[in-house]
Amino acid sequence: MSASWVPEGELPGFGIDHLPFGVFGPARHIGVAIEDHILDLTEGASDGLIDDPGGELGATELNPLMAAGPIRWASLRERVTEILVDESHRDRVTLVKRQGAQLHLPWRVADYVDFYSSLEHATNLGRMFRPDGEPLLPNWRHLPVAYHGRSGTVVVSGTEIRRPKGQTRPGQPGETPPFGPSRRLDIEAEVGFVVGVGSEIGTSVSPDAFSEHVFGVCLVNDWSARDIQAWEYVPLGPFLGKSFATSVAGWITPLAALPGARTTPPPQHPPPLDYLRDDEPWGLDLALEVRLNGTLISSPPFGEIYWTPGQQLAQMTINGASLSTGDLYASGTVSGNEPHQRGSLIELTWNGETSLTLENGEERTFLEDGDEVVISATAPSNSGDRIALGEVRGVIVP
Amino acid sequence: MSASWVPEGELPGFGIDHLPFGVFGPARHIGVAIEDHILDLTEGASDGLIDDPGGELGATELNPLMAAGPIRWASLRERVTEILVDESHRDRVTLVKRQGAQLHLPWRVADYVDFYSSLEHATNLGRMFRPDGEPLLPNWRHLPVAYHGRSGTVVVSGTEIRRPKGQTRPGQPGETPPFGPSRRLDIEAEVGFVVGVGSEIGTSVSPDAFSEHVFGVCLVNDWSARDIQAWEYVPLGPFLGKSFATSVAGWITPLAALPGARTTPPPQHPPPLDYLRDDEPWGLDLALEVRLNGTLISSPPFGEIYWTPGQQLAQMTINGASLSTGDLYASGTVSGNEPHQRGSLIELTWNGETSLTLENGEERTFLEDGDEVVISATAPSNSGDRIALGEVRGVIVP
Repeated sequence: MSASWVPEGELPGFGIDHLPFGVFGPARHIGVAIEDHILDLTEGASDGLIDDPGGELGATELNPLMAAGPIRWASLRERVTEILVDESHRDRVTLVKRQGAQLHLPWRVADYVDFYSSLEHATNLGRMFRPDGEPLLPNWRHLPVAYHGRSGTVVVSGTEIRRPKGQTRPGQPGETPPFGPSRRLDIEAEVGFVVGVGSEIGTSVSPDAFSEHVFGVCLVNDWSARDIQAWEYVPLGPFLGKSFATSVAGWITPLAALPGARTTPPPQHPPPLDYLRDDEPWGLDLALEVRLNGTLISSPPFGEIYWTPGQQLAQMTINGASLSTGDLYASGTVSGNEPHQRGSLIELTWNGETSLTLENGEERTFLEDGDEVVISATAPSNSGDRIALGEVRGVIVP
Repeated sequence: MSASWVPEGELPGFGIDHLPFGVFGPARHIGVAIEDHILDLTEGASDGLIDDPGGELGATELNPLMAAGPIRWASLRERVTEILVDESHRDRVTLVKRQGAQLHLPWRVADYVDFYSSLEHATNLGRMFRPDGEPLLPNWRHLPVAYHGRSGTVVVSGTEIRRPKGQTRPGQPGETPPFGPSRRLDIEAEVGFVVGVGSEIGTSVSPDAFSEHVFGVCLVNDWSARDIQAWEYVPLGPFLGKSFATSVAGWITPLAALPGARTTPPPQHPPPLDYLRDDEPWGLDLALEVRLNGTLISSPPFGEIYWTPGQQLAQMTINGASLSTGDLYASGTVSGNEPHQRGSLIELTWNGETSLTLENGEERTFLEDGDEVVISATAPSNSGDRIALGEVRGVIVP
């Protein structure tokens, strides 16, 4: 791959082989990250440097571009690459420094679905909460379990996270439930998939149509108040324990940047039903890292996740549910086999029984006010280097 | 209240004391139902007959009007009433026949939350599924339990409902799950509340702010595939068993039409926590009726529902979750004390153990292809008459 004329950035992973999309600045222009800069696509289109027949680059969110489909995505990526490689464009484009540029939520979220697709995560939670039973429930190996989250509280990386209040389980049955700020505030390190092209109600999407529908990938922190969740969640599942905020990265990595990261997902036993057969699976070798106040506390391997994003797409639509432009679906907490690969504090501290020691000597079971969590990830790029997915960052405020 | 110059309709309940909002016709104009007609507000605004400084009536969905807030809603209702009472406007307005007019989904749904707020419904399901335990789970009397549904598959009354496919529970543990069209397709008769004015993330809304946020009320049929739901729903709650379709009425009844229907909700034991105290509760005496192929099969009384819509609003936001214009939240199945007041087939047939006999002699446990379900409701109006909420209708297709 040819090099870009844009100077190499201080941090690696945002080269010409990546080109993630975001929405930046006070005017909410659409941009592509390149090294330490943002190429302003909205300006590029209005200057006639980039074809924009559908006007998608004049929008203040990515939804119209996402809806335009894979052919448009490919031609835009090709043109942007051309501009960034051919030095003759240097004086004709608008480049903005990434540092200091405000990033907005890049797209308007339609529905948000959260899966539960890591075998290790589901097993760990099963061991903690049903110590006498089988850790996995009977349905888990037959279908990717999921629920709908709150799309209206999906926020962009950097947004402060206010500690939620709520009821928690009374000490004794029949007592008044305690009420107050959550004392067991947790993270969930996840990978999200952003739907570009929708589907019709009454039809189903097969796993191999993944790349026709999905625009890109972003890191997700599905903040969770474990104490609120434990009291409210029967029988209809998580609600207020999750709905106060879900953070997503400000940069969406297009699928076109990820072929080099494709990997074979783990074997599935028993074999899934036909509608979940994924013959060319998009297993993705994304190496996640979770930092709490600067200390690396976990390194979850997305490549080991059991259910593929193509299978998740098929599951979500097998009942005829439609997809909409802007739908977000996330993997669920990514946890690996090793203790240091667990993607939530409840697993890392085994339900608060042990604590983590940070580099400054402080101990943590769950999050304290002022704590900062950063989830990042790298992946093999098409050129053999590594790309860095946009990080997702959040600080807890009281 | 003065009478309208519009001739009395064939069916009662759409008089000058009602004035529900809808979106109709090929051009998706905003209209108000009056007797057998629709008053075209979009035309009225463009003709200068109705003030529309914010341009809300030029939209093709109700969201901008909903976002404009209670003062705008009140002044618009006042002006529409004036026009429909003062005969001098007769030749200046556009009236369209309701019969034959196409109704669209009246607003763009943001998040959809489904509660579980009928004591009788929760008790009935508890008795069926946990015959040896307490029918109500320990949290039920302390908080209105809810989950997020799929907003992208909310459809307007009249939309055909395609029978969903999916996995169901294997006969023996360890066997391959059966896969195919749902055999236990059910209805849930519910009342929905449509949020007009949103709220900020990190803040909570108190029950007495109900009428500052909620634009109106509509009937809801939360179609449910009981067999799909029974296999998938642990541990994260209902997903594909519900997400294939949720039908809502084409007419939204504004809160201003409902003061005459306000009633005292049932007493709550134990008394709820302070944040759920609803001193001026919007208990609503809505008399629902459910018809299956023309046979009245249930008459659920919304006035008996345990948790009020103000308490539901407070619960939904107590953790700091924001409200957005277009949010829909529904009551959950409305069931009364008497067997003929149960709002779902699973309750009416006690999990399929008994069957219903329709007027044509056919028997039903769950829905067959071709079946038509109509949910309607009336309520005392401000003038002492009764208004008829817009019905929600759907036919099952294979």
